[in-house]
Amino acid sequence: MKVLLGVSNRHVHLTEEDYKILFRDEPLGKVKDLVQPGQFASDKKVSLKTEKRTIDGVRLLGPLRKYTQVEISKTDSFALGVDPPVRNSGDLDGSSKITIVGPYGEVTKECCIIANRHLHINREERERLNLVGVDKVTAIVEGEKKTIFENVFIKEDPSFTLELHIDTDDGNGSLAKTGDEIEIIIP
Amino acid sequence: MKVLLGVSNRHVHLTEEDYKILFRDEPLGKVKDLVQPGQFASDKKVSLKTEKRTIDGVRLLGPLRKYTQVEISKTDSFALGVDPPVRNSGDLDGSSKITIVGPYGEVTKECCIIANRHLHINREERERLNLVGVDKVTAIVEGEKKTIFENVFIKEDPSFTLELHIDTDDGNGSLAKTGDEIEIIIP
Repeated sequence: MKVLLGVSNRHVHLTEEDYKILFRDEPLGKVKDLVQPGQFASDKKVSLKTEKRTIDGVRLLGPLRKYTQVEISKTDSFALGVDPPVRNSGDLDGSSKITIVGPYGEVTKECCIIANRHLHINREERERLNLVGVDKVTAIVEGEKKTIFENVFIKEDPSFTLELHIDTDDGNGSLAKTGDEIEIIIP
Repeated sequence: MKVLLGVSNRHVHLTEEDYKILFRDEPLGKVKDLVQPGQFASDKKVSLKTEKRTIDGVRLLGPLRKYTQVEISKTDSFALGVDPPVRNSGDLDGSSKITIVGPYGEVTKECCIIANRHLHINREERERLNLVGVDKVTAIVEGEKKTIFENVFIKEDPSFTLELHIDTDDGNGSLAKTGDEIEIIIP
């Protein structure tokens, strides 16, 4: 079946505690709703700092979470000189140390990952699409640089709507972009 | 069969005429031989300039060629604000206009492409591997972000040695790196 694609650029999630260190009592505003219900691009940006380099203008996504997490691409990791593991969101075991810089302070912690390719889905959709008991699917991007992505992890939550997420390396390599309709198959 | 992988970062090829505009009579030195016989990373770097941005430190590959060509990734194209076509090397039809800046001058021309995935091969190897009459193959990168690359164009020349070339978007997306041994199949 075809699903909607979202290509994720580098971004940051923050706990309330870390938000207060970086932005004090500034309110967390919304620039744009994301496809996943309740999730939004906030009006706040941070810098990512390592010993090697700083990347400015990295978007904070809302709402605040129970964990602070930096999601970057492999390309970003070479620029920053870090070697983060490929992980599901929230699984920060062995993640890379990085400094997140805001206008009022900074936070340094092991919280940097490369996100797994994943498919957001709720239980109803999962049953409808015969994906109960299936952990991973395959995504096929057609075109001049046709690419087949394996190891697309299924992420189920009652709040989710059906959407495939890949990062900018995968998106740019295959010439896929946010809003494309992508074929998903069970491997 | 398995072949050696080379992941190509953004780079530039120059004609003798354009080289003289950028570097005058400075000799073209060699930093490192590439895998393809006779090809080398030169000791010269240029900047790539568009209305939107400049990327510095882009390597000139040698020797000089019959055409001037800039090869970038899709990720680079967003940074530079250009929309180059995916092309075989030397096919500059419809390529994007870009300015190449050297220490003594600059050259602006339509010469910017995103290179097709391709497999360098000579006639002997092509016969040995049953690839005569085959135009395109498929490359499979195993691992955590297993990826299958279609539309890998076969590039035959007597001077070539067997080597798969992909760009940094494809390499970083699949976590593949120069020197890896990659499985090639006939689609």
